[in-house]
Amino acid sequence: MQKINRVAIVGGTHGNEFTGAFLVKKFEYFPDLIKKFNFEILTILGNPKAFKAGRRYIDKDLNRRFLSENLQNTTLASYEDMRAKEIAEILGDNNQAAVDVIVDLHSTTANMGLSIILGNQHPFLLKLSAYLSAINPLVKVCHTIPEEGSNFLRSLSELGFVIEVGPVAQGVLNADLFQKTEQLIYTILDYLERYNHGDIPEINNPLTLYKFMSFVDYPRNENGEIQAMIHPDIQYQDYEPLNPGDPLFLTLDGRAIAYEGTSTVYPIFINEAAYYEKGIAMLFTAKQLLSISPA
Amino acid sequence: MQKINRVAIVGGTHGNEFTGAFLVKKFEYFPDLIKKFNFEILTILGNPKAFKAGRRYIDKDLNRRFLSENLQNTTLASYEDMRAKEIAEILGDNNQAAVDVIVDLHSTTANMGLSIILGNQHPFLLKLSAYLSAINPLVKVCHTIPEEGSNFLRSLSELGFVIEVGPVAQGVLNADLFQKTEQLIYTILDYLERYNHGDIPEINNPLTLYKFMSFVDYPRNENGEIQAMIHPDIQYQDYEPLNPGDPLFLTLDGRAIAYEGTSTVYPIFINEAAYYEKGIAMLFTAKQLLSISPA
Repeated sequence: MQKINRVAIVGGTHGNEFTGAFLVKKFEYFPDLIKKFNFEILTILGNPKAFKAGRRYIDKDLNRRFLSENLQNTTLASYEDMRAKEIAEILGDNNQAAVDVIVDLHSTTANMGLSIILGNQHPFLLKLSAYLSAINPLVKVCHTIPEEGSNFLRSLSELGFVIEVGPVAQGVLNADLFQKTEQLIYTILDYLERYNHGDIPEINNPLTLYKFMSFVDYPRNENGEIQAMIHPDIQYQDYEPLNPGDPLFLTLDGRAIAYEGTSTVYPIFINEAAYYEKGIAMLFTAKQLLSISPA
Repeated sequence: MQKINRVAIVGGTHGNEFTGAFLVKKFEYFPDLIKKFNFEILTILGNPKAFKAGRRYIDKDLNRRFLSENLQNTTLASYEDMRAKEIAEILGDNNQAAVDVIVDLHSTTANMGLSIILGNQHPFLLKLSAYLSAINPLVKVCHTIPEEGSNFLRSLSELGFVIEVGPVAQGVLNADLFQKTEQLIYTILDYLERYNHGDIPEINNPLTLYKFMSFVDYPRNENGEIQAMIHPDIQYQDYEPLNPGDPLFLTLDGRAIAYEGTSTVYPIFINEAAYYEKGIAMLFTAKQLLSISPA
């Protein structure tokens, strides 16, 4: 693989996810913080209009507008479709100066700690993830929705990934998570710098990877109205094992609904606010151990 | 004072505050739960359109549209202005069947526990509040913004008040807070029933009342952009004493900003998501002890 020449840090792809948006603001106020590396760093406020409005998006979810066909479709003209095209123009492959790495900063109301969300299992990303999770136990690594034909911003680069931090409410800036995310970014940038020097740290631990299995929706009535809540026993228990028979939901009238699967799963994104409208109460993942080949 | 004949329970006055909205839904799905009392109970989903959209409001904050002049102003025609008029028609004094008590259910991203928010110090409300906080240590009582010329929904009734629960993210249903709020509502309804029987419980403890003093905004630059966050030391420390010299904010570049007042205050609504747009980082209150005269 070639050297890393350009890295993009994107925040506020969802306008009400303030951690990333304000980190981008910080890097714009204090540019020296990201000038000391042996590669160029671009910072991008993903959805400025939604950030100003304190909303996830104005017309459509920006982080679902990066499907290659859509970017080329001139009839798509919503605010987010136009913004996706602008961002793809800046970051994407069509550009001579395309970035080599994209770090897209998100936050969630689920207890995701500091999660690295991968859309593919490129060896470079797996090694980086193994390193980050080995040195910081708060870091977890997921391989979520398959990248083939992806509509996510991160998919503009083969080495694109998401940092997803939580739990934090939408529209709220939490200083503790802000600082932890900032430190994680510096660790990543240091790693990229060492990679360019041919000096990446060796990791002997296997990587724990949480791999997407399926979506789970809330129990709903015939009108689509939610009839049950995340069970208190699993609220904030992202990445913990859920065994057959464990409580999953609690109906509005107080009856527990058990998980009826036949194998242990590891739920993530439990009770993410933005997923109610998408019909997602949580994602089930399988926990895998991957040995990472030496650098 | 006369008997209580009609009580209104309002939820979802802000569409993304799901605790109250889903409690109202629950009472509509299971009407028997609130049929056993010696008074009539109305349930109202405050802002159905905003609830469906998962937003605080569509055009304007509904809970700021109840100023008496505005309700009579036929030129005000936004969705929330029209909805405020509808609700005032159902609950307000102009109606023969006006309600005697309004319980307006809200939630907050601040660590407000189970807060009773009063707009006036009517002896009936003080006694009820003293009772609720005496039997449940999670219950705190605030007298916030003066009621004179109030624009809040609760002000439609002299015996109107808010239950404000948190911390919970906007657009999220938290089962634990849902159940605690539901129990608190039943305790209130039982109290009203006993009041009608001339049998309200005697409370010997003084009432601890947190009384509004002032609003505090985030430090901002000349463009109005936020330059500092709630300091981690006071995040989720609602109702705890803040002494002169204690850290209040943390700038984006990591410097603490101290509270420079001369007396101890008790901040509430610390880091409430919906207050960023209103220029409010927290409210300062004074802690008062009120002896409540026997029933």
